Amino acid sequence: MQQELNQTLVLVFVVGFAAIGFAGYLAWDVLRRGTGTREMQDIADRIFEGAMAFLRRQYQTIAILALVTAVAIGLLINYVDPTPGLGLWTAVAFLIGAAASSIAGFIGMYVSVRANIRTAAAARTSLNDAVTISLRGGAVSGFLIVALSLLGVAGLFVASGGTDLAGGGIAKAPFLIVGFGFGASFVALFAQLGGGIFTKAADVGADLVGKIEAGIPEDDPRNAAVIADLVGDNVGDCAGRGADLFESTAAENIGAMILGVAIYSATKNPAWILLPLVIRALGTIACGVGLLSVRGADQANPMGALNKGYWISTVLSAILLFGATQILLGSIWLFFAGLVGLLNAVAFVYITQYYTSGSWRPVQEIVRSSLTGPATNIISGISVGFETTFSTAIAISLAIIASAFCGTQFANEYNAVLTPGAGRIEPFVGAIFGTAIATMGMLMTAAYILAMDTFGPITDNAGGITEMSDSPESAREITDALDTVGNTTKALTKGYAIGSAALAAFLLFSAYLDKVAEVLGSRAGTDPATFMLWVRGGQTAVAKPAAVIIGSFPATVNLASVNVFVGALIGGMLVFLFSSLAIRAVGTTASAIIEEVRRQFRENPGIMEGTVRPDYARAVDITSRAALRAMILPGLLAVGTPIAVGLILRAEATAGLLMVGTITGVLMATVLNNGGGAWDNAKKFIEAGLMKAADGTVIGKRSPAHAAAVVGDTVGDPFKDTAGPSLHVLVKLLSTITLVLAPLFI
Amino acid sequence: MQQELNQTLVLVFVVGFAAIGFAGYLAWDVLRRGTGTREMQDIADRIFEGAMAFLRRQYQTIAILALVTAVAIGLLINYVDPTPGLGLWTAVAFLIGAAASSIAGFIGMYVSVRANIRTAAAARTSLNDAVTISLRGGAVSGFLIVALSLLGVAGLFVASGGTDLAGGGIAKAPFLIVGFGFGASFVALFAQLGGGIFTKAADVGADLVGKIEAGIPEDDPRNAAVIADLVGDNVGDCAGRGADLFESTAAENIGAMILGVAIYSATKNPAWILLPLVIRALGTIACGVGLLSVRGADQANPMGALNKGYWISTVLSAILLFGATQILLGSIWLFFAGLVGLLNAVAFVYITQYYTSGSWRPVQEIVRSSLTGPATNIISGISVGFETTFSTAIAISLAIIASAFCGTQFANEYNAVLTPGAGRIEPFVGAIFGTAIATMGMLMTAAYILAMDTFGPITDNAGGITEMSDSPESAREITDALDTVGNTTKALTKGYAIGSAALAAFLLFSAYLDKVAEVLGSRAGTDPATFMLWVRGGQTAVAKPAAVIIGSFPATVNLASVNVFVGALIGGMLVFLFSSLAIRAVGTTASAIIEEVRRQFRENPGIMEGTVRPDYARAVDITSRAALRAMILPGLLAVGTPIAVGLILRAEATAGLLMVGTITGVLMATVLNNGGGAWDNAKKFIEAGLMKAADGTVIGKRSPAHAAAVVGDTVGDPFKDTAGPSLHVLVKLLSTITLVLAPLFI
Repeated sequence: MQQELNQTLVLVFVVGFAAIGFAGYLAWDVLRRGTGTREMQDIADRIFEGAMAFLRRQYQTIAILALVTAVAIGLLINYVDPTPGLGLWTAVAFLIGAAASSIAGFIGMYVSVRANIRTAAAARTSLNDAVTISLRGGAVSGFLIVALSLLGVAGLFVASGGTDLAGGGIAKAPFLIVGFGFGASFVALFAQLGGGIFTKAADVGADLVGKIEAGIPEDDPRNAAVIADLVGDNVGDCAGRGADLFESTAAENIGAMILGVAIYSATKNPAWILLPLVIRALGTIACGVGLLSVRGADQANPMGALNKGYWISTVLSAILLFGATQILLGSIWLFFAGLVGLLNAVAFVYITQYYTSGSWRPVQEIVRSSLTGPATNIISGISVGFETTFSTAIAISLAIIASAFCGTQFANEYNAVLTPGAGRIEPFVGAIFGTAIATMGMLMTAAYILAMDTFGPITDNAGGITEMSDSPESAREITDALDTVGNTTKALTKGYAIGSAALAAFLLFSAYLDKVAEVLGSRAGTDPATFMLWVRGGQTAVAKPAAVIIGSFPATVNLASVNVFVGALIGGMLVFLFSSLAIRAVGTTASAIIEEVRRQFRENPGIMEGTVRPDYARAVDITSRAALRAMILPGLLAVGTPIAVGLILRAEATAGLLMVGTITGVLMATVLNNGGGAWDNAKKFIEAGLMKAADGTVIGKRSPAHAAAVVGDTVGDPFKDTAGPSLHVLVKLLSTITLVLAPLFI
Repeated sequence: MQQELNQTLVLVFVVGFAAIGFAGYLAWDVLRRGTGTREMQDIADRIFEGAMAFLRRQYQTIAILALVTAVAIGLLINYVDPTPGLGLWTAVAFLIGAAASSIAGFIGMYVSVRANIRTAAAARTSLNDAVTISLRGGAVSGFLIVALSLLGVAGLFVASGGTDLAGGGIAKAPFLIVGFGFGASFVALFAQLGGGIFTKAADVGADLVGKIEAGIPEDDPRNAAVIADLVGDNVGDCAGRGADLFESTAAENIGAMILGVAIYSATKNPAWILLPLVIRALGTIACGVGLLSVRGADQANPMGALNKGYWISTVLSAILLFGATQILLGSIWLFFAGLVGLLNAVAFVYITQYYTSGSWRPVQEIVRSSLTGPATNIISGISVGFETTFSTAIAISLAIIASAFCGTQFANEYNAVLTPGAGRIEPFVGAIFGTAIATMGMLMTAAYILAMDTFGPITDNAGGITEMSDSPESAREITDALDTVGNTTKALTKGYAIGSAALAAFLLFSAYLDKVAEVLGSRAGTDPATFMLWVRGGQTAVAKPAAVIIGSFPATVNLASVNVFVGALIGGMLVFLFSSLAIRAVGTTASAIIEEVRRQFRENPGIMEGTVRPDYARAVDITSRAALRAMILPGLLAVGTPIAVGLILRAEATAGLLMVGTITGVLMATVLNNGGGAWDNAKKFIEAGLMKAADGTVIGKRSPAHAAAVVGDTVGDPFKDTAGPSLHVLVKLLSTITLVLAPLFI
């Protein structure tokens, strides 16, 4: 067993470092490409400098907040838990998670804002080259994030004594690395909030002051906010979503390993704890192959090439998953459970397309309602947004039930052929582990999805550079086509991110209960496995452990308790209040940028005449400061609420907060993402001249219906790019924060 | 004990019949007043006929649906439960509840649409008379609803054998009357949905086709939809909200009696089961006194007189509550618990004012954001709407924790002086009963609140009649002032309704668990009290009853179970999907009315010239049909989802659905009600000329900011008058439906 354990970990580390090497190769391949004309370089340099300036400032703020939080966690845990060094160790794991997430975000952004100009330059000659550069530029982020998260979890697992099979260190290690997940969530929250606020404030601000007040077109170089707008695409979609999926992969990986401990205690097979790492490593290999297979993009449908790569990644993931579950655990049921996750990813990609693409009823309903003005457009968009929770909830419910069924079947088969004296796997433990395998299966394609996501801001920026630099019409056609694809891939990634968050919710909730059991067990000085069965299964699984009296936690989280109900109510409220603050922050920040652009127009009339360049850097700087100020309040609310509930209402109420906060958060994020996407595409549908009156005349740009659709699009912007994505992070932060601080709540 | 039981019930019946007599007196007092000019009578008759035609058609539809449902319930319960006649009895109770709610709604509406013209006539001479007539007209509804709900519950309690103290019938009776609550919820759902869709479709339709397309002012008699609009105010606010609060009082009363059974089993004191009835009877007396004390309305602030009446009702309720708890149960803690409920009602009245009145930050924020157009107005309104969940959740959390604390203290004191052999009251049982007393305390002022609510449509209609009949300017000033007060009271009632729904959520959830225990107990042929302790308290309270193996229900509802999680997810989703369908139904129905008005303008040019009256009745008829068609789908969804989850995922998952559906529903209703109210008042703030530019000029009607505010107001209409109020009903329907059908789910 020890040898197999070591070999498996070596495989994980090899894949992790190979993925970093692969990202390095992709970065080299992108950076060696041509950079076009001087004019283009000039614009690209401004975007690069703006993005880097924002990121530096943002990570400085985050670093201070993270350091304070790390010290506080360390001291608090030391205070309640006598285990020597546990506080220090948790604080260090937190900082490593925070640092790894920041590094992945920073390098990914660096390459992304270097890839935009190379994509624009390539678009002057070849669509295929432009697709290759933008996808590979995006893949640098994708692989770096997946690799650093994998190496971070695996490295801390080894450092926490996870290789100690004889001494039982392996069963303790997963609990010692939860700090890494919290660190990653912490950075992700602020990265996504700050980036999301920046990007939409710049977008809305540039539009309001440029198109509406000054009457100049989008991406016009006379608008001082135009560079901020292009910077925003990077800091929101690339850095923000990157941090989001970094923490998804980390938190869910750690949660799945914790769930594996209960089965390990029964079976003594370390594969139960290592399986999540292995599945992710194999998924990364599959994504590498899928990515390299993307070529031959076709101008009529460049999305086709990207889709092909996604399907290759998915099918290859399934094959590797089959091999891993057969070799390590010898059960077809666990393969089925993982397959449920892979299929769930596909389901979310199609659900998102249905609700946000112009070809289907939802967007067309919004288009039609634009004919009677902005009010009916908004009503119809909100109705569509609310409706999208239906497919989301059904898809997630089916995935959880199906994967739990697979896990139960596995446990039953395992128990049927038990050798005398060997430990049973309780069916309900198998069920929960089945959902964990499904979540890991869903995350196998994360690297590819992330590459597609960062493809979005790169092509968007390439379009902006082409627009501002008077490039030939043919180049514009190519970047326009890529921009449309980029909008689709961005929407798909959001669907994938929320789908994985929803599927993971149950896993992370169960991991919290296991963590509570582990704390109870370690305080009683006994093996935590008995406590896990007790906490998760109630007295139907195992009799009440005598030592449990030291903790106040009952056998099961009891819905009928006053504290649980109140915790649940606060959990649901937190989602609404957090969304409110995030949406409002966009408005506040947009006012700051609008005033700055107005000031520049007023104080320097040469700008409007086109003889003087506006001060782009100052506009970026002011937006940065305002966005970073605005992210503090919602961020602290998200971190502070679960801590306050835990300290005042204790661990059982925290479980209620966790569950209802997660469910409401997932549903609300779906509403905001899909509603926003549908409004966006309803506007694009009209702009493309696809809406016709009864007599066949086109109702297009500059019609009243178009003006109504623009209102809807503007409303949808902070929904889909600020509040929605930040909610993804919130729901996982709730899990990681409670995992780390559970000892304080008992 | 038997004598006290009988005396208490006599008191309840006397108050119930006296309240009906009081409603009759008020109706006589209203109907004997003058009815103004022929022209006014003509308009009022059209409103009356339209409202009655809609109501007849609506109740016909509901009657068919209710009959089918009653037969289905009866057969299903007979199928799973061998108790002779239980199915028939439940079906009959269901039909009595449905009929009582319908009768109260119908008579209340009858008086309300007769009071409008009398208010308009009185406004020609005296503000004070106008206030008296409209408030008393509204109070007919209020007292009839409260009385019929009280008599229905008390009557069925007696008919179910509740007076049988020696034979134990008293402990069984509360479970036998749950059908009454379900019947009331069933009618309320369709009454509120149908009325809410009708009122907003007529409002939006009349506005879009009149003000925007034809360019004629509001309430212009040339608009064929104008009578439908005035009818709508009655069927939405009067009939709809009346049915909503009818079922609130009924369902929460039954739930509180069920919770009393557990304590009765320990103490053998019937007062525990009767207390909810007594509290409501005393509240009705207090409201009668409060109502009669309203006089001396002052033109500058007519709201002051209404507020005084409300405070008299509240203070008198508190005094009577003190007397009842001292005499019946001799404990100050139960008085405190009830007081928490009364104070919670006051808190919700002020929270609603803060978020929806022009004097405070939230509305002013929306006003300011209107300067930059409709998009920022919408963003700001949604942000305010989301924010309002904060105070709601905090107020409810504090009320639940405080009243549970009072209940626990009471149990501890009771147990401390226990005579040997007497039954203990478990502290957690006391806690839950404490929240039930708080809910009943909150409902004490229901009759007065309902009178204030129906005051709204009466004064609104009086304003419309005055406007359409060329009355003197002085009369208009009075009806305008009353209309403003009516808007406030309507908003307050919605706050009160959602506050009581939220407070009741925990009570009803606990009642569901007791019902499950009662089913388990009766199937095992033993006393249900042991099962109640076991289901609610887990093994900490009592050892597992042997006979529980016949049911699949575990000791506590376990959040970590797959089925509970999936049920919870579906419960949250149901709220979003239901809101989506309700909002969309307004759009569909508005299209129907718009087409009809256009047709009349087109086919009869004399209408626009003012020489021919449009066909108002046809417009009402078409809107009615469309609204009733549109209410079926969301209605069936609300009824079908909990049944489907119960049958497929069973009783424990249903508890998850109930809890998350209730919490999400309450939060979402808050968002929709308060967001809509804030938008409405932001528009009114601008129309009143209260917004000024930096240089002091007024930015008023017909400014771009006003146009933006009108968009927000239109968006808010289906939120606050259709989806929001329907959600109040949905959350309680989930409770009553699961209470009745629990035997099917175990």
